[in-house]
Amino acid sequence: MTLVACIGGGQLGRMLGLAGLPLGLRFRFLDPSSDACAREVGELVVGGYDDPAALDDLARGADVVTYEFENVPVEAAVRVGALPPAAALEHGQDRLREKELFRSLGIPTARFGTLDETGLPAVAKTRRLGYDGKGQRRLDRVGPIADDELAEELVRFERELSIVGVRSREGETRFWPVAENIHREGILRVTRAPARDAPQDDAEAICASLLDELGYVGVLAVELFEVGDGLLANELAPRVHNTGHWTIDGSATSQFENHLRAILGLPLGSTETRERCVMINLIGAAPGLDELLALPHARVHLYGKEPRAGRKVGHVTLLDPDEETVVRAVALADAADLA
Amino acid sequence: MTLVACIGGGQLGRMLGLAGLPLGLRFRFLDPSSDACAREVGELVVGGYDDPAALDDLARGADVVTYEFENVPVEAAVRVGALPPAAALEHGQDRLREKELFRSLGIPTARFGTLDETGLPAVAKTRRLGYDGKGQRRLDRVGPIADDELAEELVRFERELSIVGVRSREGETRFWPVAENIHREGILRVTRAPARDAPQDDAEAICASLLDELGYVGVLAVELFEVGDGLLANELAPRVHNTGHWTIDGSATSQFENHLRAILGLPLGSTETRERCVMINLIGAAPGLDELLALPHARVHLYGKEPRAGRKVGHVTLLDPDEETVVRAVALADAADLA
Repeated sequence: MTLVACIGGGQLGRMLGLAGLPLGLRFRFLDPSSDACAREVGELVVGGYDDPAALDDLARGADVVTYEFENVPVEAAVRVGALPPAAALEHGQDRLREKELFRSLGIPTARFGTLDETGLPAVAKTRRLGYDGKGQRRLDRVGPIADDELAEELVRFERELSIVGVRSREGETRFWPVAENIHREGILRVTRAPARDAPQDDAEAICASLLDELGYVGVLAVELFEVGDGLLANELAPRVHNTGHWTIDGSATSQFENHLRAILGLPLGSTETRERCVMINLIGAAPGLDELLALPHARVHLYGKEPRAGRKVGHVTLLDPDEETVVRAVALADAADLA
Repeated sequence: MTLVACIGGGQLGRMLGLAGLPLGLRFRFLDPSSDACAREVGELVVGGYDDPAALDDLARGADVVTYEFENVPVEAAVRVGALPPAAALEHGQDRLREKELFRSLGIPTARFGTLDETGLPAVAKTRRLGYDGKGQRRLDRVGPIADDELAEELVRFERELSIVGVRSREGETRFWPVAENIHREGILRVTRAPARDAPQDDAEAICASLLDELGYVGVLAVELFEVGDGLLANELAPRVHNTGHWTIDGSATSQFENHLRAILGLPLGSTETRERCVMINLIGAAPGLDELLALPHARVHLYGKEPRAGRKVGHVTLLDPDEETVVRAVALADAADLA
């Protein structure tokens, strides 16, 4: 049996497991919480991500080690020889290095650096460990920027888009259709894919140049701003990504399965997409299962997590829905939200 | 959390678990083998199906109890209040009662009973505990029929078909398209669904009358022979069925998910099917994962079982394949078969 080890045992690990079990793969997860929701699809090692003994327990006998969040300590990833390679992690963890990487590859970004470089209004973002909009503050006038912060131009974008791609060990790449994303309070709420009239080729070119530059293996997501005259790269995430969850139900091969195929040296699967998908995150708490399952053509994904404000506890993907169903589903999600 | 308990921890239990985990359900299985392949998707109680203590361990705290094979002792199913109801199990376990049920509902069958009633050639089948063609022998001349055997007319059928249906607690029914099945040495090898030019309405009528008569809740499969002038019912299976595995990838809702929805009193899901599917069983041993995944539009399902002659270790579903791909996939499966 092939054993896949994963640093992190949250919902992304759980969905990796659900994608891999039908391939006959087995899973082991490392997580500080004995309650980690991936424990239902594999063995769970409870321990810190920086605990060498726990990392060794995780990696023992594994055919490959991967991770499900971008704030894995780089030394931990290196210790267990994780894929995607640590270079991606280093860039994904530091907004300044990330932006410099974009610049070095000729990928357009918002202006960044000091307030002199960005102009006003700007956003001060912590360089490290920010996620879901945390660690960000808007600057409308000149003020101090901490050493661990980076100023970015406040971009007036038309849409937030993202592209998810995968690269095999041999360097073959595949991409899913560009998705359009709606955030609220810094948390992704809705993804529509394929995004209407999206600049697929431009987005693929950005993702491809990052995949190749990083000698990447696995799934990489790039968040993009669509502005009047093109795309700006905002962030990369060296992992399976919330804006790619729709691929479980909407694509011939999901991001989770193709991530596993890539890191295990197996042939990549088709990313063909036939239906228009709308993915709605369930935040805080999930609506009743009976209500969710009564939505037409809804595919329900609950993560087995206890309710908590701001927590992603599940998602629903609507296949080729009419707008009335989308509105109903969003209202259901909002009514259950603890916020 | 909703807990589903299942008598039996084989591949059908495993696929029930894989369908239910995304709905936030948890699973517990009872199986005599500590190696039962469903253990990867839930808790495993190791014990005999006729062991009251083990059955009580299985059922403790469960929201519903179901089963994944038709030879569950009826007393066991009654003890834990399993769904589908025990009446279905009683008929599914005894070929004579099964045939008499068909007759009482006006569902055509092959002639059965004594050799006087069937004529020659005939097939003598054990009344109980037969599966995958075991316990059957052909009779070309008059000879003794044991007390635990039933004689059936040897039917010269055009095709073997099957229909899988589901009935909710409220009596709502849904059906998947009729499938065409190819057996070899009594074991299902290939299912094509939807079957071309199949008598869908007639098959649904047969399945519906059984579902209603039995006050059924859950998924029921009926194996059918297509003969010149119609359908003959051959067997019923009061459970998810190998000839419905294609629904995981080919239908809006799989047989596994709809079985769970039905027994839990949740709304049934759409059985809409858009693509032509070919499901190929992997018997004995599985081909290499790299070879399987290289088949175009193949969805691979391995059960995590050790190889053994005659054992179902996985299946592959090809979505809308050309015949060349079907031939390649069958050849791959045959080359790996230990027989």
